[in-house]
Amino acid sequence: MSAQIQALKSRLGTLADLDGATELAVWDQQCKMPSDGGRARADVLSTLASLRHEMFTDDEIGRLLDGAGAELADADPDGDDARLIKVTGRRWEKSKRVPTELEGELARASSEGQEAWVAARAASDFKSFAPYLERTLELTRRYVDCHLGHDGYECAYDVLIDDYEPGIKTAHVADLFAQLKGDLVPMIATLAEATPVDERPLAAHFAQDGQRRLAREIVGLMGFDERAWRMDDTVHPFAVRIGPGDVRITTRWDESYWPMALYGAMHECGHGLYEAGIAPDLARTPIGDAQSLGVHESQSRLWENMVGRSRAFSEVLAPRLARCAGGELTGIEPERLYRAINRVKPSYIRVEADEATYGLHIILRFELEQELIEGRLQVADLPQAWNARFHEYFGLEVTDDADGVLQDVHWAAGMLGYFPTYALGNLIAGQLWERAQSELPALDAQLASGELAPLREWLRLRVHRHGAKFETEELLEREGGGPISVAPFVRYLKLKLSDVYGVDLGD
Amino acid sequence: MSAQIQALKSRLGTLADLDGATELAVWDQQCKMPSDGGRARADVLSTLASLRHEMFTDDEIGRLLDGAGAELADADPDGDDARLIKVTGRRWEKSKRVPTELEGELARASSEGQEAWVAARAASDFKSFAPYLERTLELTRRYVDCHLGHDGYECAYDVLIDDYEPGIKTAHVADLFAQLKGDLVPMIATLAEATPVDERPLAAHFAQDGQRRLAREIVGLMGFDERAWRMDDTVHPFAVRIGPGDVRITTRWDESYWPMALYGAMHECGHGLYEAGIAPDLARTPIGDAQSLGVHESQSRLWENMVGRSRAFSEVLAPRLARCAGGELTGIEPERLYRAINRVKPSYIRVEADEATYGLHIILRFELEQELIEGRLQVADLPQAWNARFHEYFGLEVTDDADGVLQDVHWAAGMLGYFPTYALGNLIAGQLWERAQSELPALDAQLASGELAPLREWLRLRVHRHGAKFETEELLEREGGGPISVAPFVRYLKLKLSDVYGVDLGD
Repeated sequence: MSAQIQALKSRLGTLADLDGATELAVWDQQCKMPSDGGRARADVLSTLASLRHEMFTDDEIGRLLDGAGAELADADPDGDDARLIKVTGRRWEKSKRVPTELEGELARASSEGQEAWVAARAASDFKSFAPYLERTLELTRRYVDCHLGHDGYECAYDVLIDDYEPGIKTAHVADLFAQLKGDLVPMIATLAEATPVDERPLAAHFAQDGQRRLAREIVGLMGFDERAWRMDDTVHPFAVRIGPGDVRITTRWDESYWPMALYGAMHECGHGLYEAGIAPDLARTPIGDAQSLGVHESQSRLWENMVGRSRAFSEVLAPRLARCAGGELTGIEPERLYRAINRVKPSYIRVEADEATYGLHIILRFELEQELIEGRLQVADLPQAWNARFHEYFGLEVTDDADGVLQDVHWAAGMLGYFPTYALGNLIAGQLWERAQSELPALDAQLASGELAPLREWLRLRVHRHGAKFETEELLEREGGGPISVAPFVRYLKLKLSDVYGVDLGD
Repeated sequence: MSAQIQALKSRLGTLADLDGATELAVWDQQCKMPSDGGRARADVLSTLASLRHEMFTDDEIGRLLDGAGAELADADPDGDDARLIKVTGRRWEKSKRVPTELEGELARASSEGQEAWVAARAASDFKSFAPYLERTLELTRRYVDCHLGHDGYECAYDVLIDDYEPGIKTAHVADLFAQLKGDLVPMIATLAEATPVDERPLAAHFAQDGQRRLAREIVGLMGFDERAWRMDDTVHPFAVRIGPGDVRITTRWDESYWPMALYGAMHECGHGLYEAGIAPDLARTPIGDAQSLGVHESQSRLWENMVGRSRAFSEVLAPRLARCAGGELTGIEPERLYRAINRVKPSYIRVEADEATYGLHIILRFELEQELIEGRLQVADLPQAWNARFHEYFGLEVTDDADGVLQDVHWAAGMLGYFPTYALGNLIAGQLWERAQSELPALDAQLASGELAPLREWLRLRVHRHGAKFETEELLEREGGGPISVAPFVRYLKLKLSDVYGVDLGD
């Protein structure tokens, strides 16, 4: 390894360590920290963000990037080092435009906003949260102003979404979402006319201890490893890798609605498997992270839905569910379970939404946050706007902000531009799932017997190991069969829901 | 506030945030981290230590210290700002002498050493741990070499102990310990001849759940507050403040020896109360930390022993113990409990030692670590040296290194010079206890009724609130009645143990 690349990697390793400390501080804040520690935690996160930014945007990094780039001029452009230079260079250019002070303020606002959100959500009190959101929007607009006019950004939202799904443009997302909405709306309308599935198993009482045992068993089959993973309780579930050998997933429990915890755990474990599967050689470099949140979400949704809600895996799930839950779920048949967990029904909470309506939850947020950042919608008017649009899309009246505009942590944490990646993740999952089915002919039989390692290994080779070496559409063209596309996901949905509801949704 | 002091405080605040991130990473490593995360955690801790050191030793801090000192030339020398300059200046001078690279290596060796120690202790395998200790000693000697010839250090050990008990000299400690040993040895000999107390209550089976309830109740009386504190399980208990409003104590459980968990929890809660009681005005500055480990230990030992093992508090403890434990402890009388928990009996494990033999455990370590750092004792010979000296002091044969030289984490963590502070803490606790008794005439009655707030408040005013404003002996002269002294602690011990054993130990 040449001297310049080595020096660059040493600096990037230090930054990766600061990221590890930051991830830990965030995980702790959401899982362990006593409530009075919030103010001090905001100080810590702000300082870490400022330092990280200051160190990353140091001119010496630019010089080392130039020097290392020159050294690699004749190297394989798809090699680890060449890709490291390319990806790091792009991030360095973007970071350089943001004053360190603003980075620190954004981190502090995120930390304080999340604390305020926890209280506001518990009290269903949007007003107490509004000033935090105002502050976040003000800072986010300053952030956008640093970047407009660079990198081909055509609007404020382009700047934001690029942080979560590097390289994608708002117009492209809007186009994909228009197609998706065009497919979902008639599908949901048809299903609303169909005979409802029996969803009583979903509401059967299931004690928390048993739910924990079941979730542990299932994530154990997926690849959760006690030596390198943890599972903890939180308010808003997430997964995080603190560092190699240290993946943490979180979940929450509802004894009257067990799918929340189980599918939450499978979802977060899917994220964790992505993090755990990144090639060790890439550790402590920017390409040793996941590529994007869209790709991340493709992994979580694939495990949660394509696997977890499949007819085949219901064979594994039903007897375990019966054993851990007892009561009304004693002896539940795989077929009955399969139908219940695939019921389609408009509902208030995104993270509990079925696969068909889920996309509409995202499209709603995608629209509202564009309006917020562009100033077309004021914070004070947000709950009304949310409720009106929610009624339009779902036919439901929101009567409690905790189940409406306050349900998600993202805006509280300053993460505008994040939501679309959830729906993009579904689309990508659809593409990968189609390809996995064609390349793993025994997949259905494996799922039915709880043998999940072959699929996990396939995903590791196709997706995980690459880290952030390739941008999403490049990765998909190499490993998934084409650029982001709506059709495979819709085909998957129609096939399954036609089966579950016994209606013809087309193909 | 003048510009220079403000600029200085801003920089010191950033450093305090790095300390918070570090404390959290250490807490997590010992309480939550999956085992495979150790290597990445060592990277994080090493990077944080290096950064902190680099930023603290920046020349600009020196200039700001000079400038702020000049601005405060006419200010009250006991004021917060004047003391901040004095204390920070001393630490800055000491830190400046240590290369950043060495700081990083020490942090990494500490983190890796602790991981190795956990495994070595579990397997009682000193050999696997020896290379880590060698490395730690090598780095510690390099650290000592940075300082010898400065600050009046007369020997290698002066440099080390100063990090834990600022300003104290090895010769002074050796003198205090010689007096202490001179008092303890005949006391222990007399008690060995006395009728043994009935210690069966200590070994009564007590289920972990009940122990948790009891510990929670007792630390609740002391001032543990759910909004600002946590209690977790660990291998080697400790207390830490991640930041204001975030104090964490840890404990471990043994169903065949309940005093370990209960007195461990009281001990760590005593540490936590000190951290929680530091004046908020001092937050995010170097004088917003505890003064020294000796003062810290005076707080933990005072609560654990002077309160927790008092005749008065046995009235509170006995009925709660009976209720939470049941079984053999049903209906235990306060008097019987009081005698059992004050039994004196040489044993292997320091943290479970009684108040009389405890000092000998410390003196043994104080002697051995001086020999190690000076090269008079080789690592390979350490277990034998430990066992020989242990036999000399306690009349016991060590047959298992896990109960001998491997029992403590300190050397694994690179903390040489730390152990003496435990015994100094006992001496300081003796002094404060004598003063508290004279200034709080209702103290005994309060302890007997579980009313612990008056004592906690007295300690907050006398000790906690000052943080690190005053060096230990100055603090004691202001608030405790004189410099560190052996006599009050020995008077306290003689009085109690004469009572417990019904023998005359003199006064």
